[in-house]
Amino acid sequence: MKKHKVIFQPSGRRGEVEEGKTLLEAAQSLGVDIEALCGNKKVCGKCKVRIEEGYFEKDNIDSGMSHLSPLTEDEKKHIKPEDGPGMRLACSAGVYGDLKVFVPERSRAGKQVVRKAAKELIIALDPAVKKYNVVLQPPSLHDMTTGDYERVLKFLEDDYGLKELKFDYLVLKDLQTVLRKGEWRVTVTVWMDREIIKVEPGFEEACYGLAVDVGTTTCVGYLTDLSTGKVVNTESMMNPQVPYGEDVMSRITYAMTNPDGLDTMQKAIITGLNEIIERVVSEIKKDGPHPGHAIDDLTIVFNTAMHHILLGFDPVYIGRSPFIPAVQNSLNIKARDIGLKINPSAYIHVLPIEAGFVGADNVGVLIAEEPYNQNEMMLVIDIGTNGELLLGNWNKVCSTSCATGPAFEGAQIKFGMRAAPGAIEVVQIDPDTKEPRYKVIGKTDWHSHLEKINAKGICGSGIIEVVAEMFKAGIIDKSGKFVMDLQTPRVRKGSDGKPEYVLAWAEETSIGTDITVTQGDVRALQLAKGALYAGAKLMMKRLGITEIDRVVLAGAFGSHISREASLTLGMFPDCHIDKVYAVGNAAGDGARMALLNRGKRIEASERARWVEFIEIATDPAFEKEFMQAMHIPHMKDRFPNLKELLAKSGSRVEIKG
Amino acid sequence: MKKHKVIFQPSGRRGEVEEGKTLLEAAQSLGVDIEALCGNKKVCGKCKVRIEEGYFEKDNIDSGMSHLSPLTEDEKKHIKPEDGPGMRLACSAGVYGDLKVFVPERSRAGKQVVRKAAKELIIALDPAVKKYNVVLQPPSLHDMTTGDYERVLKFLEDDYGLKELKFDYLVLKDLQTVLRKGEWRVTVTVWMDREIIKVEPGFEEACYGLAVDVGTTTCVGYLTDLSTGKVVNTESMMNPQVPYGEDVMSRITYAMTNPDGLDTMQKAIITGLNEIIERVVSEIKKDGPHPGHAIDDLTIVFNTAMHHILLGFDPVYIGRSPFIPAVQNSLNIKARDIGLKINPSAYIHVLPIEAGFVGADNVGVLIAEEPYNQNEMMLVIDIGTNGELLLGNWNKVCSTSCATGPAFEGAQIKFGMRAAPGAIEVVQIDPDTKEPRYKVIGKTDWHSHLEKINAKGICGSGIIEVVAEMFKAGIIDKSGKFVMDLQTPRVRKGSDGKPEYVLAWAEETSIGTDITVTQGDVRALQLAKGALYAGAKLMMKRLGITEIDRVVLAGAFGSHISREASLTLGMFPDCHIDKVYAVGNAAGDGARMALLNRGKRIEASERARWVEFIEIATDPAFEKEFMQAMHIPHMKDRFPNLKELLAKSGSRVEIKG
Repeated sequence: MKKHKVIFQPSGRRGEVEEGKTLLEAAQSLGVDIEALCGNKKVCGKCKVRIEEGYFEKDNIDSGMSHLSPLTEDEKKHIKPEDGPGMRLACSAGVYGDLKVFVPERSRAGKQVVRKAAKELIIALDPAVKKYNVVLQPPSLHDMTTGDYERVLKFLEDDYGLKELKFDYLVLKDLQTVLRKGEWRVTVTVWMDREIIKVEPGFEEACYGLAVDVGTTTCVGYLTDLSTGKVVNTESMMNPQVPYGEDVMSRITYAMTNPDGLDTMQKAIITGLNEIIERVVSEIKKDGPHPGHAIDDLTIVFNTAMHHILLGFDPVYIGRSPFIPAVQNSLNIKARDIGLKINPSAYIHVLPIEAGFVGADNVGVLIAEEPYNQNEMMLVIDIGTNGELLLGNWNKVCSTSCATGPAFEGAQIKFGMRAAPGAIEVVQIDPDTKEPRYKVIGKTDWHSHLEKINAKGICGSGIIEVVAEMFKAGIIDKSGKFVMDLQTPRVRKGSDGKPEYVLAWAEETSIGTDITVTQGDVRALQLAKGALYAGAKLMMKRLGITEIDRVVLAGAFGSHISREASLTLGMFPDCHIDKVYAVGNAAGDGARMALLNRGKRIEASERARWVEFIEIATDPAFEKEFMQAMHIPHMKDRFPNLKELLAKSGSRVEIKG
Repeated sequence: MKKHKVIFQPSGRRGEVEEGKTLLEAAQSLGVDIEALCGNKKVCGKCKVRIEEGYFEKDNIDSGMSHLSPLTEDEKKHIKPEDGPGMRLACSAGVYGDLKVFVPERSRAGKQVVRKAAKELIIALDPAVKKYNVVLQPPSLHDMTTGDYERVLKFLEDDYGLKELKFDYLVLKDLQTVLRKGEWRVTVTVWMDREIIKVEPGFEEACYGLAVDVGTTTCVGYLTDLSTGKVVNTESMMNPQVPYGEDVMSRITYAMTNPDGLDTMQKAIITGLNEIIERVVSEIKKDGPHPGHAIDDLTIVFNTAMHHILLGFDPVYIGRSPFIPAVQNSLNIKARDIGLKINPSAYIHVLPIEAGFVGADNVGVLIAEEPYNQNEMMLVIDIGTNGELLLGNWNKVCSTSCATGPAFEGAQIKFGMRAAPGAIEVVQIDPDTKEPRYKVIGKTDWHSHLEKINAKGICGSGIIEVVAEMFKAGIIDKSGKFVMDLQTPRVRKGSDGKPEYVLAWAEETSIGTDITVTQGDVRALQLAKGALYAGAKLMMKRLGITEIDRVVLAGAFGSHISREASLTLGMFPDCHIDKVYAVGNAAGDGARMALLNRGKRIEASERARWVEFIEIATDPAFEKEFMQAMHIPHMKDRFPNLKELLAKSGSRVEIKG
């Protein structure tokens, strides 16, 4: 395989790259972060890079050979004259010679702020996997009819009361060697008091589990010390299935229309999770041939489509009536059967699903938030690429799902970006002057107090906040339309002739161009919030209630959202602002709880059956509700005393617990 | 890959063979049987073939290029001038051009008479694996919250009382498709009332299991219809580990001295068993990508070394003091974990072992012969490459193992061969004239009544018979030495200067040379029988008994052995000839019983622990017993009324049961 030297600037990272690889692949292999929001789908145009030199050596100067593959149609669409010369899309340009490449600030991904960061959970420690120290007498000719296997079992029964344990076959294969290496002192890892899934020489204390949340767009893994319950490390990544479809339905379609579609997507997510595993264990184990084998348990939550695709079940039947899932029960699957590179003898615990559209992720939310242990009527909104809703109390809980699209995650937004340094996340707009002030991630002060702001884009919670502020400042009306002829240069027509609001001028940014909120951005947000609102309203009707006592916002950015903005926009039915809580990644919390306490696994199975699934997409009333819910209500109409409330509670919600 | 045309005569089979393959591989791939007693170890010299033509086309005649690899040192050792021109060892000569090859009769393996043929067993049918018909209502929008998995489980519980079943992950992956292909009528295969290991569309009746007996030298598989208990097909082959060592200890040594030794031997036996699986299912299933998947259960017996190597446990610890096995309990291992190509979701049931030297094969004999259900003091001799002994009754049963070597199987005997057509198996020698008469396998008459005899060699039971007859006729004395100066041309000095007895003249054979019994053959047999006899004697001493009520001969050729000859030679301590039974492959019977009745699996586990293992090899008395036991006693001294007894019972033993 021919290789070429590639240098990335300004980081200076360099290395040899196989011919034909894209610049994005080259960057990833060399540890250079380039924004690829669309997941290599060649549609977002956010991975622009500038080719500085196409050669290193004098000899090559006059050869006239291009060191890159020809410009593609995708690139022609995205690269504008104003981008300047030498610009290419990193996802599309292939390496065919030595190169020096400059990654503009705008295209740099930066280290993503993990919005799915783990909060502390208060739960009794009773993990499915436990370690036991075993000390044996070296065998002699007096007990030569007792095998190694039987000696270990006898000790575990005599000293720990563990009866009728099985050995996993792979553990058994190594047992003799490990016993002798440990000089008859070993540590035995037991799963569910039933099966020995590891034997290590000597006495080992540390025992690790991984709680995994596979979202349609983002995957995250929480490495947990099962002896303390603490999260030791968190790693996340974009779901590698994104290139095969941005949402659930398009991935199901991909599986239906491509002969190897299911297999391809399954391999992609397994490979992705193995990368998370490899990265997450770097915190605890840096050497050895299989560092991932330090993980002895894994719990996983996901929506039903991600569940089916990851487990290799054909998702076609959940994509069409009567929407029957392959399985709803929780599953325990050997890690090696599914190709996850943790301890191959360990089990993956898959949380149960509720129905075709309400998955194990929602069960995770359910056992984390426990609406069934409340008197108050509680609405739990899990905001991801899909919105999933739980409504109820101890008496009854209903669930449903509604398609919000990825706008809340910053996708489909012109200057949308992941929650990374430079992303605008807090915004206020002066109703008189229409001048904004904003904060970017990584800096605590308002932008007006900063010398160098280096804004780069707007993250999901920033989008919600800026649109709410635009409405309150009269820049858009309740239908979401721009009000023109406002005496401000910030409201103008964009290059596409449609109105836009300039949130940050080019000189305040690190990307050299104005950061704007467009009419299209506002529409995308209205569609998303309308779907949520309509879903909640219909559930209330079904339950025959008119009031909600408490709203819990869960999801990737649920912990960063402004309560005021979400109420202003009408993301959910009215609720007293004091009773709106953000809980962060509750689905992930559920996975973590199931990892730490096996009683939670039983609770999950029982409650998943107990919750009543309500189908709202086919409800004739849905469209009407949805059309109404697209409008933006003004919260002042509903909360006359909002200012006092905010003064008392602060406008930003903190993570509870 | 370059290929060449090869024709084998006289069968006329022909085909294309990859360059570099040996003639033996070529023959095997074209279905031509060539004797390869040493298992391709290049030591037996029995695979001689004559190259008839090294070319097919005129153009090649004058090229002078050889169509074969050069003569090897092994070949030079084995090929004698009297073999005539063009002779090569098929195991050593590589194909490098078109060839016509003649396989002399002597080198033809013929279809082996499976000495491990299955006898009928009388046992209640209660297999571990059972099939159930399931009929579901097609799902509708009214029950969309119930998954396919849960529907199947509910039916099995409601209609068959099967509770808390698990699905194997691989079965679950295909469940949705199979249910729809079968239009909601499927057949579910359940293992041990615990786990679903197969779902097939429509209603399937047939359910198959395979009982496997892996001997040091021979492997055999009995394909069994689990709904009738009948053996449908039997396939056997030489253990493909033979090239790595002819006996147990040399294979353990191979594993110790070669870094990949264990892995190599494990792969060899797994590959061999997969070949047996492929051949054995040809009787029931000829098409489809995985015909072996028709097998849903597999039981296996073997000695402890074969057990460890096949399961990938390091055999080194059972080869040295204190001889501790990795595991003694029975094991259930997923077929896919071990690479056996039956239903990958099925389990392999490994019968328990007794001790380092008494393996699962002996447990098979134990549960087949049930000495623990007898009042009589019973000696069970399982004769294979090792001899394993059980002695006892309801009160107590002891076991031991003694190294007999492979002489009983026809190996290490000059004209020894497997039990195939042409093998001499019955012999009588006139004490006055020293003239023999004999029968060959495949023909019912004595040789003297046949026009064309075509004797080819002597099989294991034939060797025992001829040596016993030689003793009775005064050709050898009680120490095993040849008596010379007998007025017969049949006793002569061989080409090595040592005495030999001509059993068949060249013209009676199909191999064109006299078939003789040499001094070395007699010695090999004496060593083997001496080990057995001494072992049994020492066990009797330990048990404090002086008489045995009943002798059961088990093993590959146990069903063909002459009771008179075995008593004449003194293969085991005295017992009334009416009380000597041959039971055939009792180890295989045990495997078959465990396949047909799961109660037998529990019995095996309990009895394997209950039997007392006695170590005799290290007993100081062993050597003395062994030296004495090498001598040949004359049975007339012990059974004065033998002739009447024989007249009453017939001299050949029939398979009981």
